[in-house]
Amino acid sequence: MKRRDFIKNTSVAGAGLTLAQKKKQGRRDSKLSVAILGSGFRGQSHISLLLNRSDCRVIAIADPDKEMVKRTKAMFSKSGNAQPMVYDNGQKDYINLLDKEKPDVVIISSPWMLHTEMAIACLERNIYTGMEVCGGFSIEECWALIRAEEKSESHLFFLENVCYRRDVMAILNMVRQNLFGELIHLECGYQHDLRGVKFNDGKTAYNSGVEFGEKGFSEAKWRTQHSVHRNGDLYPTHGIGPVAQMININRGNRFLYLTSVASKARGLHNYIVDHPKGGSSHPNAKLKFKLGDKVTTSIVCNNGETVILHHDTNLPRPYSLGFRVQGEKGLWMAVNKSIHIEGLSESHRWESQDAYLKKYDHPLWKRWEQKAVGAGHGGMDFFLVHSLLEHAKNNEVPPFDVYDAATWLAITPLSEQSIATGSQPQPFPDFTRGKWLKNTTKFALNDAY
Amino acid sequence: MKRRDFIKNTSVAGAGLTLAQKKKQGRRDSKLSVAILGSGFRGQSHISLLLNRSDCRVIAIADPDKEMVKRTKAMFSKSGNAQPMVYDNGQKDYINLLDKEKPDVVIISSPWMLHTEMAIACLERNIYTGMEVCGGFSIEECWALIRAEEKSESHLFFLENVCYRRDVMAILNMVRQNLFGELIHLECGYQHDLRGVKFNDGKTAYNSGVEFGEKGFSEAKWRTQHSVHRNGDLYPTHGIGPVAQMININRGNRFLYLTSVASKARGLHNYIVDHPKGGSSHPNAKLKFKLGDKVTTSIVCNNGETVILHHDTNLPRPYSLGFRVQGEKGLWMAVNKSIHIEGLSESHRWESQDAYLKKYDHPLWKRWEQKAVGAGHGGMDFFLVHSLLEHAKNNEVPPFDVYDAATWLAITPLSEQSIATGSQPQPFPDFTRGKWLKNTTKFALNDAY
Repeated sequence: MKRRDFIKNTSVAGAGLTLAQKKKQGRRDSKLSVAILGSGFRGQSHISLLLNRSDCRVIAIADPDKEMVKRTKAMFSKSGNAQPMVYDNGQKDYINLLDKEKPDVVIISSPWMLHTEMAIACLERNIYTGMEVCGGFSIEECWALIRAEEKSESHLFFLENVCYRRDVMAILNMVRQNLFGELIHLECGYQHDLRGVKFNDGKTAYNSGVEFGEKGFSEAKWRTQHSVHRNGDLYPTHGIGPVAQMININRGNRFLYLTSVASKARGLHNYIVDHPKGGSSHPNAKLKFKLGDKVTTSIVCNNGETVILHHDTNLPRPYSLGFRVQGEKGLWMAVNKSIHIEGLSESHRWESQDAYLKKYDHPLWKRWEQKAVGAGHGGMDFFLVHSLLEHAKNNEVPPFDVYDAATWLAITPLSEQSIATGSQPQPFPDFTRGKWLKNTTKFALNDAY
Repeated sequence: MKRRDFIKNTSVAGAGLTLAQKKKQGRRDSKLSVAILGSGFRGQSHISLLLNRSDCRVIAIADPDKEMVKRTKAMFSKSGNAQPMVYDNGQKDYINLLDKEKPDVVIISSPWMLHTEMAIACLERNIYTGMEVCGGFSIEECWALIRAEEKSESHLFFLENVCYRRDVMAILNMVRQNLFGELIHLECGYQHDLRGVKFNDGKTAYNSGVEFGEKGFSEAKWRTQHSVHRNGDLYPTHGIGPVAQMININRGNRFLYLTSVASKARGLHNYIVDHPKGGSSHPNAKLKFKLGDKVTTSIVCNNGETVILHHDTNLPRPYSLGFRVQGEKGLWMAVNKSIHIEGLSESHRWESQDAYLKKYDHPLWKRWEQKAVGAGHGGMDFFLVHSLLEHAKNNEVPPFDVYDAATWLAITPLSEQSIATGSQPQPFPDFTRGKWLKNTTKFALNDAY
């Protein structure tokens, strides 16, 4: 691969080399240097994992939010780590971080609208780039990421943590061992009552009020605006990432097209009106939220599978990613925690998933379980950060690469376009430009990382 | 309503009067006369309920299948009822039945392709017409039913039994009492491993072989052919009927359009190849089944709700109609038998449905529970037949009328069209021609029928 041929760079000496260059010269620091762009709660969660590791140092953070910087610095003090360099002089100060600190690895955990811009800046500087998830804005943005990565000497690792969820990995293990036969139909999504996240009192992050934007705090500050103006699947990747692993998207298979439907929007308005700090005369009660309370997207795949993707964040409900994995021989549904496998299960009857999840527990989980305990989101964040750093050490192609990022991000603008046009089907570009014909999966093939 | 004005008919005297005419003249027999068109297993199931009732007599059956006629006659002997007149001289002999026996009520439980033709013949003869469910074939067929009904002095009762399922009626009760608030999103469908129904050995109906068509028995004789040639939601009404009650379709609301996706087809072929009486050299192993194993249809409603409709009949799986009823205030899902209602349930947590289903048990079920015990499909068939006969007695507009029949049947051809055109959206005609603006529901408003 051309961009992995670093001969052209070996004449550059001293500080300021990329990780790949340092490695090539056998001069790499024994610890990876990591910078965090966006040190809000998600960035802090990553930092807490990084501070527990002996193979990296968090050398710098960039965030214009003084309150979040303060909280982040307190984490370093509390854990007895050296303070990071702080770049908090506006939203472009992260560029100075990249140029002055020259981190080996960057984690981008900023608001959604900054992800692509930041990732491109990192890739241009040949930094191993971990980019947090969200939905995208345009197909052109997806291509821009790909252009930047293909020119870069480094890689984009798309940080989809749910791929590491224990039950999901056990099911993937079962898929790979052919328990379900050839896969036929899958469902997934993001079904999470975010009303108490989208609104707060500007001080306490969750369930504290009905403000957002400039008057909000944390995610309410920036995330809620998307629900005001956009109608589509705004957050597809927690569902589609794991499903993509099971049906080998971009690796012998690809998404052909999608259609989306959106319900009416009631939940966010009701929340404002019914909240003790809101009411029908609160200014936010006048807003018309564009985001349908339930957005459902149907995807048709090249190899004949169908995928249904749920987005449901404005209504009272229990958390559920709604996984369904159905093949020739059997079916798993997460919502009732049940499995049916022909020949193993009683005909026409569910079995509890428990024995299967235990038996097919993924080697990664078996090996690293104790390390994962206490990590964010039921331990899966440990595996995510672990994988990011281990791949970065050797500048390896990540399991969720720039083509996956582009494909998964594209669901958001495509679903918006479908809804805006009365559910017209929207084709997926082949972001790999044919590489999906030969590429094979690199995800979780053993217990290493 | 013009067709209910029977003055023009009162001069006709003697036998051969319609039910409505006899009633008008105060000359109606105290028992309804019922005829069954199609006395296969579904017809026999209805007959067993009818033979238990004191308000009707089953006077005639029509079916060209000698074996099924024999079984049906045995039911009459066993129960000590007078034998019905039998019309078994080919597929058109039912016309002779209608003209000679002049039944008050007909139940059409023949193969799908005969439903519309038979219903139109009954309506032309002003017979109160109960038509069994299936999916339709064309939009024109739906209009033909409507034209026939609007000209008739009688009515079409579309026999969707799942509207009477106990949990479904309790949830409808909760919907009407506003437990869920304004409804936002619904799911439903027909998910039933029918492989052992679509194929048999020509003698035993279920799980006995891999034959169908002329070599098959019962449903395998005619139903399987649809899976060979058609790709769409072939059986939408068990799901959509109950959902239509909850969101008042054709009564202040209507379906605007749908899109459908279909997965690849593997299940039926596998079944033939893997069956001990089949194998890869069995002639049926050469067939290419057109019906995708999983067909998913998304419907957008005039009042802003979305409906997802599942069709899944070719793969190993437990039976599930997959109901999901979601509103501003809460959510029911049948698959995990759970409910979440804001203010009642713990925040972000499921509750068992049990206490809710008990508390909101529908008055119909409370009153008739003992009668329903033992009736087909968990008792709901009792309510269906009960409702049909009670409505027929007074020639009342049924709860599921010809406009519902047309709307629900239309899903099949519309889904076929959508799949055939790469999931292009397909508009629903307004079969009511505006009557949905004013019509209101007649379904299950009290405990009578």
